[in-house]
Amino acid sequence: MSQDIDALQTALREFARERDWGQFHSPKNLAAALSVEAAELLEHFQWLTEAQSRDLPGDKRGPVAEELADVLIYVLQLADKLGIDPVDAAWRKMEANAKKYPVARSKGRITKYNEL
Amino acid sequence: MSQDIDALQTALREFARERDWGQFHSPKNLAAALSVEAAELLEHFQWLTEAQSRDLPGDKRGPVAEELADVLIYVLQLADKLGIDPVDAAWRKMEANAKKYPVARSKGRITKYNEL
Amino acid sequence: MSQDIDALQTALREFARERDWGQFHSPKNLAAALSVEAAELLEHFQWLTEAQSRDLPGDKRGPVAEELADVLIYVLQLADKLGIDPVDAAWRKMEANAKKYPVARSKGRITKYNEL
Amino acid sequence: MSQDIDALQTALREFARERDWGQFHSPKNLAAALSVEAAELLEHFQWLTEAQSRDLPGDKRGPVAEELADVLIYVLQLADKLGIDPVDAAWRKMEANAKKYPVARSKGRITKYNEL
Repeated sequence: MSQDIDALQTALREFARERDWGQFHSPKNLAAALSVEAAELLEHFQWLTEAQSRDLPGDKRGPVAEELADVLIYVLQLADKLGIDPVDAAWRKMEANAKKYPVARSKGRITKYNEL
Repeated sequence: MSQDIDALQTALREFARERDWGQFHSPKNLAAALSVEAAELLEHFQWLTEAQSRDLPGDKRGPVAEELADVLIYVLQLADKLGIDPVDAAWRKMEANAKKYPVARSKGRITKYNEL
Repeated sequence: MSQDIDALQTALREFARERDWGQFHSPKNLAAALSVEAAELLEHFQWLTEAQSRDLPGDKRGPVAEELADVLIYVLQLADKLGIDPVDAAWRKMEANAKKYPVARSKGRITKYNEL
Repeated sequence: MSQDIDALQTALREFARERDWGQFHSPKNLAAALSVEAAELLEHFQWLTEAQSRDLPGDKRGPVAEELADVLIYVLQLADKLGIDPVDAAWRKMEANAKKYPVARSKGRITKYNEL
């Protein structure tokens, strides 16, 4: 994993250790918390049109960045507990997606691969 | 942002560009897709006990890593569209959390900061 | 609660009892499952435009109805476990919303009440 | 659909009409809002143990009932827009589930039907 991500993950581990939060941070609970934060991120967009979301009002940028941060934090904490390298997993998933969604058949269509 | 993450984000941008998926990838839609993937990750844990989730069956590891990858992919794509550096945002959020959850008051308690 | 809803809730209770699923159906787990089903519902809409979602393709109606059903089923099971009447709670919430979102200030604006 | 649910759905339709919220209430947006409310419900349970969730602290009951109400409200509004009867859909889903999860094979096991 890249150095910065690695340093962040280490800092998060120390953050939780100092507070004795390991007892709460089961993978099950972290997955629930991740899902909750992703929904809080979505909440900022739920009543916007797509066009408005592409041109986010300035006062929304800070709160949105904070929710994105929360999601990434839980991704890293959950991956850490499970011994999964999320950056490596993302590279492999992208390669798998390249096969499932060949350019010729997917161009301009985002249909699920099994409906292509 | 770290080099590996940066390279991954660039590859994802190219992946979407080749398929002409920019039209679908509004921040609103990416936030919804992120939330859906986070829920698919949670689905693997929903009926497990916390203890079982800490000792994940071997055959669950691959599928769980794939869902984590999907979440990270959408985090990077959404951050890219919004011009937000998610790693930097996570560092700043962790620093803010350190103030909201001082060790002395948060040790062994994960109560929301405004109920501490 | 209305008779039909009441009968449905009773049938769901019996369904779980026959299968000895009470051990899995903690409120925590039911809330996670509810959230997962809500995301599966959202998945059907994530790449549609709003206009397309208002004119849902015929072949999507069945799957969407099934996901809506799953969400309602978990709402009823969770409410049952907690001894909450969800229909009554919804009436009370709508009355509270009427005060938070007075017509004069909310007409044509869906801004969160504390930002009105 | 049962009379009470029917009356509630009619009241919700009038609530939105008075505020001219039809423009925001596309099925896509309602599905996103439903998912967000389900996550807010889950948030109350995310750090509780299953045992704690079965014996919910008294001060949590009100907030949890409100989130359940929000979920039900969006279920009814979305179903209304799509012309789907959610109570009827839930009965049909339960019957389908009875076939997918026969008592003999599902007793004490909540494994997904295609892994039974």
